[in-house]
Amino acid sequence: MRTIDVCVSPELMHLYELRDRTVVVVDIRATSCMVTAFAHGAASITPFSSTEECRRMKDKGFITSGERNGEKVTGFDKGNSPFEYMGDQVKNQKIAFTTTNGTQAIEKSKGAKKVIIGSFLNVTAVTRYLLMSESNILVVCAGWKGKVNLEDTLFAGAIVENLRNHIEPDCDAPLAAQHLYNLAKNDMVKFLSNSSHVKRLNRLNIHKDIEFCLTPDQYPILPILSGDILVAR
Amino acid sequence: MRTIDVCVSPELMHLYELRDRTVVVVDIRATSCMVTAFAHGAASITPFSSTEECRRMKDKGFITSGERNGEKVTGFDKGNSPFEYMGDQVKNQKIAFTTTNGTQAIEKSKGAKKVIIGSFLNVTAVTRYLLMSESNILVVCAGWKGKVNLEDTLFAGAIVENLRNHIEPDCDAPLAAQHLYNLAKNDMVKFLSNSSHVKRLNRLNIHKDIEFCLTPDQYPILPILSGDILVAR
Repeated sequence: MRTIDVCVSPELMHLYELRDRTVVVVDIRATSCMVTAFAHGAASITPFSSTEECRRMKDKGFITSGERNGEKVTGFDKGNSPFEYMGDQVKNQKIAFTTTNGTQAIEKSKGAKKVIIGSFLNVTAVTRYLLMSESNILVVCAGWKGKVNLEDTLFAGAIVENLRNHIEPDCDAPLAAQHLYNLAKNDMVKFLSNSSHVKRLNRLNIHKDIEFCLTPDQYPILPILSGDILVAR
Repeated sequence: MRTIDVCVSPELMHLYELRDRTVVVVDIRATSCMVTAFAHGAASITPFSSTEECRRMKDKGFITSGERNGEKVTGFDKGNSPFEYMGDQVKNQKIAFTTTNGTQAIEKSKGAKKVIIGSFLNVTAVTRYLLMSESNILVVCAGWKGKVNLEDTLFAGAIVENLRNHIEPDCDAPLAAQHLYNLAKNDMVKFLSNSSHVKRLNRLNIHKDIEFCLTPDQYPILPILSGDILVAR
């Protein structure tokens, strides 16, 4: 039987053999933005680890996007709210994207067989792709500055739960994530109300973002890494 | 209010400032052995990261103890089962101890204000000490070869839960551990029956070890690091 594991922090990536795996990267707000952008016609998203590299893409006609410490980078076109990627705002545009945690997680995943982007907004599209693929799976949680965060862990748990009849947990992290997801799934917003991330978001007055990011299946979109660039499959 | 955080793997220790914290190290089987040994009169336990260093202590009159990959090290006096540390087996003896994960976790904790040893066997003694101390707290889970394991995480969750009215979770890892503990606490053996560690233990035919290690409050013992040596407080 194929297996699924969960890496709870990008700082533990060295423990996992990536070559033969399909990796799903989740950084709940950032990957929700990416999925939303593709659902609204974005041509591509190029992840950058550094804000400076990302900023330089402006001259090449890219939209510059992303956050540091949860807030939009000064001078960038867009931040880390999915509502900035709706309507015609990103249609046919190339986006250069950087975040505190997520783009680093994508960078570290590049040795994998396939790298796809997950969020609750496209959780069924992710599940279906994983069911059809023939590889073992690793869900990489971007976390927060190397530490575990609950919302990325809940997404990992949703994937483990959705695949439970077909793909076996490889270790304890996927079991822990699955338990937490099953505990939270009937009201994830309430479950997360004490989490550090939501407290951070409430300070930033963007509670509606987290509510939207926790709404499953808004878009049947699957962003996939092709070389260094994310495209919609 | 004082805070408590949980480090789910020794490989994430660099993310935590230790200097002003009380660190609780848990590596469920190893720390259960340590607590059991002190409850039965052991004079001291010296943790070693390498089996070779540990082995050399034999000539200095130490009992040599520990495991690699869950099994007793060849030529050592004792392995990693608490039942080997009962009766008169360790009375007044000095023990040199090494394990796959736990002794490394202790080594990495040495910059902390205080380092104590936790297990379910002494969970109330640990809780009382932490309530009386004035520092912030970090529970360090030894995990398994850098990865998260459920039983260490459950112990961390028990500490967070026991202190909930007095000491605040600092981040999401303590909240996750607390949720998992509350889900598991009525039957931890059953909860862990699918975990990778218990599967490993069942292969090694030592199921009674894990049942004992999950029994709270067998011993009112608090091992504490004094220099490089653990002593009973």
